[in-house]
Amino acid sequence: MMTDPIADMLTRIRNGNNAKHDTVDIPASNIKKEIAQILLDEGYIKGFDVIDDGKQGIIRIELKYGKHNEKVLSGIKRISKPGLRVYVKSDEIPRVLGGLGIAILSTSKGIMTDKEARKEGVGGEVLCYVW
Amino acid sequence: MMTDPIADMLTRIRNGNNAKHDTVDIPASNIKKEIAQILLDEGYIKGFDVIDDGKQGIIRIELKYGKHNEKVLSGIKRISKPGLRVYVKSDEIPRVLGGLGIAILSTSKGIMTDKEARKEGVGGEVLCYVW
Repeated sequence: MMTDPIADMLTRIRNGNNAKHDTVDIPASNIKKEIAQILLDEGYIKGFDVIDDGKQGIIRIELKYGKHNEKVLSGIKRISKPGLRVYVKSDEIPRVLGGLGIAILSTSKGIMTDKEARKEGVGGEVLCYVW
Repeated sequence: MMTDPIADMLTRIRNGNNAKHDTVDIPASNIKKEIAQILLDEGYIKGFDVIDDGKQGIIRIELKYGKHNEKVLSGIKRISKPGLRVYVKSDEIPRVLGGLGIAILSTSKGIMTDKEARKEGVGGEVLCYVW
């Protein structure tokens, strides 16, 4: 049994990105699809496919690199964890590197970035930082 | 006239680090020496020399890279600026990437990291983030 599927997703992306791989495959789930969508919307990945494998499905993430093959996503960090959940109120939403990065939050209005949560006036669980 | 000598220092370090240079030279000042000392103490640079050039002096920073020539210092960002000073109270000291990076603050007790400021119970001006 996997104890923290989101941590597993972030680790696969981090490792694939460090190794300059083109894609990484991740066992699918709804929340992981939403995280992939945010990474895409925020410009950190090139795209993703959801592949039917007859079981839970696979999310294939296309990693993104710059003109000189430099990393576009420089770091990713799990914040809330199964053993230590991190929740913030709407007036405590963290800024990542003064706005250079993003936080991804799970809120009552769905999975969203820190910027969206501030706009919506909702707090929630801080899933991870990306920069 | 240079309008923001600390921004100039950080830019020289950032550019030298991106270009994988061994050293960068910076016009010296006391506050810049203190920032260099913190970068050294926190493991982001290999060392620094203060060189007498008969004028204001030069700080020569030895940049640091990993075993596989990867960056040790992945990013550096000016926060407080001459046109928009950023001050925080002792209970508002920012955490950089959840403790993965550091903030350097100018406080009534000297230049120090966010961790030291929290320990000393002092706020101050947030000079920059390093991660």
